[in-house]
Amino acid sequence: MRKPLPPVVLVLAGHDPTGGAGIIADSEAIAAAGGWAVTVPTALTVQNLHDVQRVIPTSPDSILAMVDALGEWPVAAIKLGLIADEATLFAVEKAVRRFPGVPVVADPVIKAGGGTELSTPALCRAYRQRLLPLVDILTPNRYELTQLTPDVQKPDDDTARAVALMSHGCQAILVTATDNPRPGCDQQQITHTLHMPDTTRQWQWPRLPEQFHGSGCTLASSLAARLAVGERLLSACEQAQHFTWESLSHGYYQGSGQALPHRFFDAHFFTR
Amino acid sequence: MRKPLPPVVLVLAGHDPTGGAGIIADSEAIAAAGGWAVTVPTALTVQNLHDVQRVIPTSPDSILAMVDALGEWPVAAIKLGLIADEATLFAVEKAVRRFPGVPVVADPVIKAGGGTELSTPALCRAYRQRLLPLVDILTPNRYELTQLTPDVQKPDDDTARAVALMSHGCQAILVTATDNPRPGCDQQQITHTLHMPDTTRQWQWPRLPEQFHGSGCTLASSLAARLAVGERLLSACEQAQHFTWESLSHGYYQGSGQALPHRFFDAHFFTR
Repeated sequence: MRKPLPPVVLVLAGHDPTGGAGIIADSEAIAAAGGWAVTVPTALTVQNLHDVQRVIPTSPDSILAMVDALGEWPVAAIKLGLIADEATLFAVEKAVRRFPGVPVVADPVIKAGGGTELSTPALCRAYRQRLLPLVDILTPNRYELTQLTPDVQKPDDDTARAVALMSHGCQAILVTATDNPRPGCDQQQITHTLHMPDTTRQWQWPRLPEQFHGSGCTLASSLAARLAVGERLLSACEQAQHFTWESLSHGYYQGSGQALPHRFFDAHFFTR
Repeated sequence: MRKPLPPVVLVLAGHDPTGGAGIIADSEAIAAAGGWAVTVPTALTVQNLHDVQRVIPTSPDSILAMVDALGEWPVAAIKLGLIADEATLFAVEKAVRRFPGVPVVADPVIKAGGGTELSTPALCRAYRQRLLPLVDILTPNRYELTQLTPDVQKPDDDTARAVALMSHGCQAILVTATDNPRPGCDQQQITHTLHMPDTTRQWQWPRLPEQFHGSGCTLASSLAARLAVGERLLSACEQAQHFTWESLSHGYYQGSGQALPHRFFDAHFFTR
């Protein structure tokens, strides 16, 4: 008699050949948190550790066919990553609606680590209007938060931006500040802020010297896996940040470009 | 200062949403063997634990663009999996030729575990003629071995078939017999046979009761990672079989369809 599967996380996100980010990264973070990832690539990408060169969206039909074929699986959480165009967004919206009541973590991938824009104002608008009402927790960095809330005028009022997004139905927003620390803050400490309708909670992490490839995917997938196993939101946010920081601090660096997280940093394997 | 990357294995193979097989499985097996996988999806697939419903080949241009973008990576071994049509095969051939001297492990995926044919006689011919001369070790099951050698008349003469394939330039063939034990053998023991130009070597493994999804990917990727870290062929074949058998024997079963390997069976993670 076999063991039953660990809690299943359905991932709809891009594929990154380097394995630093995208569905490979998601699967690793989910496995490390005790879950099993089922993955539907929303796009293939041509990229390396310097930048994204091309994004090749998967057809909406293929996305929905892949999700439908997984119909028997006991999906316990959903993680959304790269959504490269509106056709993909509509397919992802349909896919998420097939799993009512399942917690949804969305990492709004708007710019690649190397700088390439992966989104447009129209796509950001559709993201807010169609997808956010289905999302339980959004994990933008400060740039993504700003892009998603063009109507909020005060440049550094993250709380106003978070409140504006929560008015669309999203229940919590974990804003990471590694990309752009708030002015006046200690630049050696990174502050991540969880915004909820009636409260906020902050965590501080020592800044690491490198730029990383896949830190956002790692955080959002780890968080989704923790929700899948039944952890509560606040604890899941804290543990996912801890896991991500440890993965980065144990990361790999090839001498140029971005460094890579090591998501199995304290796993002991068969052959080692 | 960061650690350098572990030995890199370039994977050209299909994507399987279930994570049991395909590039997610390859990445897991490679990570578990101490390598880092970079993955280029040769196809997306619509499938579950019962069968493959649809194969969506990646365009040859996209395959080659993804490989080119990884040009700076120190690829130490290559693993080839699903190649769904001739256009893909030509792109994979070009990709492999960009890494002269790097060991190549090829798992010729000809039929899905659930029974769907993934290949044709013409594609098998092109595989033999174009790809086999570039392959160091091929890992067919007995059905795939037969499909690749239609000119060999004796039905159970695996050695004649292996010799025929080695005449195309492939240096070694590890034939797994889980799918179809040789007549007259103990049906509770599975015998895998490594054919080399002047010798053969056999290993026996207790038969497991379930049918598995992704055992072939696990074996070939584990083998590629072991070659990437510098292990010798005979030892790498033995260790990869051991890892695969353990992954299957620790596997998961959902109550219907194929069981799933647990490739992190003896990893101890952060949160567990």
